[in-house]
Amino acid sequence: MRGAVIHAPGDIRFETLDDPKILHPTDAIIRTAVTCVCGSDLWPYRGLEPTGEPHPMGHEYVGFVEETGSEVTSVKPGQFVVGSSATSDNTCTNCRNGFQSNCLHREFMSACQADYVRIPNAQGTLVATDEVPEEKFWPALLTVSDVMGTGWWAADAAEVKPGSTAVVVGDGAVGLCGVIAAKEKGAERIIAMSRHESRQKLATEFGATDIVTERGEEGVARIKELTGEIGADSVLECVGTAQAMQQALRSARPGGNVGFVGVPHDVAVDGQELFFSHVGLRGGPAPVRRYLPDLIDHVLTGAIDPGKVFDLALSLDQVAEGYKAMDERRATKTLLTP
Amino acid sequence: MRGAVIHAPGDIRFETLDDPKILHPTDAIIRTAVTCVCGSDLWPYRGLEPTGEPHPMGHEYVGFVEETGSEVTSVKPGQFVVGSSATSDNTCTNCRNGFQSNCLHREFMSACQADYVRIPNAQGTLVATDEVPEEKFWPALLTVSDVMGTGWWAADAAEVKPGSTAVVVGDGAVGLCGVIAAKEKGAERIIAMSRHESRQKLATEFGATDIVTERGEEGVARIKELTGEIGADSVLECVGTAQAMQQALRSARPGGNVGFVGVPHDVAVDGQELFFSHVGLRGGPAPVRRYLPDLIDHVLTGAIDPGKVFDLALSLDQVAEGYKAMDERRATKTLLTP
Repeated sequence: MRGAVIHAPGDIRFETLDDPKILHPTDAIIRTAVTCVCGSDLWPYRGLEPTGEPHPMGHEYVGFVEETGSEVTSVKPGQFVVGSSATSDNTCTNCRNGFQSNCLHREFMSACQADYVRIPNAQGTLVATDEVPEEKFWPALLTVSDVMGTGWWAADAAEVKPGSTAVVVGDGAVGLCGVIAAKEKGAERIIAMSRHESRQKLATEFGATDIVTERGEEGVARIKELTGEIGADSVLECVGTAQAMQQALRSARPGGNVGFVGVPHDVAVDGQELFFSHVGLRGGPAPVRRYLPDLIDHVLTGAIDPGKVFDLALSLDQVAEGYKAMDERRATKTLLTP
Repeated sequence: MRGAVIHAPGDIRFETLDDPKILHPTDAIIRTAVTCVCGSDLWPYRGLEPTGEPHPMGHEYVGFVEETGSEVTSVKPGQFVVGSSATSDNTCTNCRNGFQSNCLHREFMSACQADYVRIPNAQGTLVATDEVPEEKFWPALLTVSDVMGTGWWAADAAEVKPGSTAVVVGDGAVGLCGVIAAKEKGAERIIAMSRHESRQKLATEFGATDIVTERGEEGVARIKELTGEIGADSVLECVGTAQAMQQALRSARPGGNVGFVGVPHDVAVDGQELFFSHVGLRGGPAPVRRYLPDLIDHVLTGAIDPGKVFDLALSLDQVAEGYKAMDERRATKTLLTP
């Protein structure tokens, strides 16, 4: 098989690799339908995280089951499946509590920017569609496995309710999917914080009612101005920086909620500020598996089309250009087709 | 009138003061039925907070309406009333959202360790009982205005649900009231963290099913052991120190909730740890007003008796001894009767 390997910052190569094999009876092998580059893949690409020894990249996938281990009975070869970057047995206590991304047997996916992928915990992780979906749905189903699932979780953690006001901090793919989620959950007013014209446009198409371009204290002041000086019911923090977290916490009303889904980098929350704000805070890796059946349905019925977050489509062997375009901000998110 | 005045750390005097007067048409004057000393009063008493100029002390009260301002129509002279240390108009957006302790017109009470007290925002703050309750209920009604209301809020913020497991960090009056709240909200298992025999006994009487004496990492390990290595559904943090907060966050299960009600002193929450824990966090000054009608009912029907947290009863003119006994840990909480 062939797949993307990072050798050093800025150095992604498309190489021939060993075919994945069933290692455990709970594994499955899938043939990739489409995969993509994630914003988080840029951390090592930009040298902001050590790349270490050369290793395969990618954690997003949808595809066709090729082979299953002896304990996998829920999916069959030939089926089209959607999964998650955090695999889960879907039976342990944390899974039953709806936090499959904290499964006691969790393994984080890697090596998905490839034409074949081994999926651990396949029984609990993969959800098959009733029939093979039309190709036009594949990009949206791919987002469901990651960025759309994460945007949904952000809205869930921020407790977006019908008729409420939601603020989305971050206009990357996850933030844009957060707008979709807030809309689907019935938010009446959705304020997207964005400075990029093309993303503002997509946010509006997805349901944003207001765009705020200010940041920091000015951004908070603008949110207060738009919300009767009280703040928003729900804030979706889709970045992961200290500045974004502060923006989020200060934009929520007393008793409001912040859902934070960007992996925090150097973020510390001041206990006393949180205390007097009365704001509720919950985050973490998205429990995508909890939402999969519902979100697959949303996509296949045409209720949502998060596939629009892909603004660059390449063949898988052009993966290096996919990284480069995102690094240079020529693309929000790159779709890769084997 | 006469009331407690702090002159310096350790120096509480019972003095003759000017009678309180109606200053605004929204004020009321009450004659104190009972008042008490709060754990937070010990901060200045112990010199851990500056005392500044001599000033009256106390923020807990129940009593009889003596006089009302022209805009106060909800309570009448002669009625027995329960309030809160955070006054509220009960009409602003934050109040309507249930966060009366973040009322846009909030004033924090002071000067309540006295025989007469001025109550700002009386219309929204005070709740009158249908008739004057028997004296035996006064101590419990006094806790409802503060420590019991705060324990209830801790359980509410920690989202205690029927059948769940709750941990209470802190065995002061608020923690003990948190045990009552967890019990009333239907927690099946209530783990009280306490090292003091008399408080362990009261916690058990209030509904604690397990006592954990270990602290820090050992305490967390013990909670994990008692909860199938997963952690508790809900944790009530009733202390306010960095150690207690860490204990609370690490004792909750993925997807669980921490309600924190002790004013945080030097607490910073690590964003990445909170992220990967999937724990929800909410705290703040208790919105006591939200709970008053219900909690007054709980007391008067005999469903709960949080008045038991008072283990020392003195006459108001002995207030200095009330502080001393709590400072020396001879008492958990001192009741004062004019």
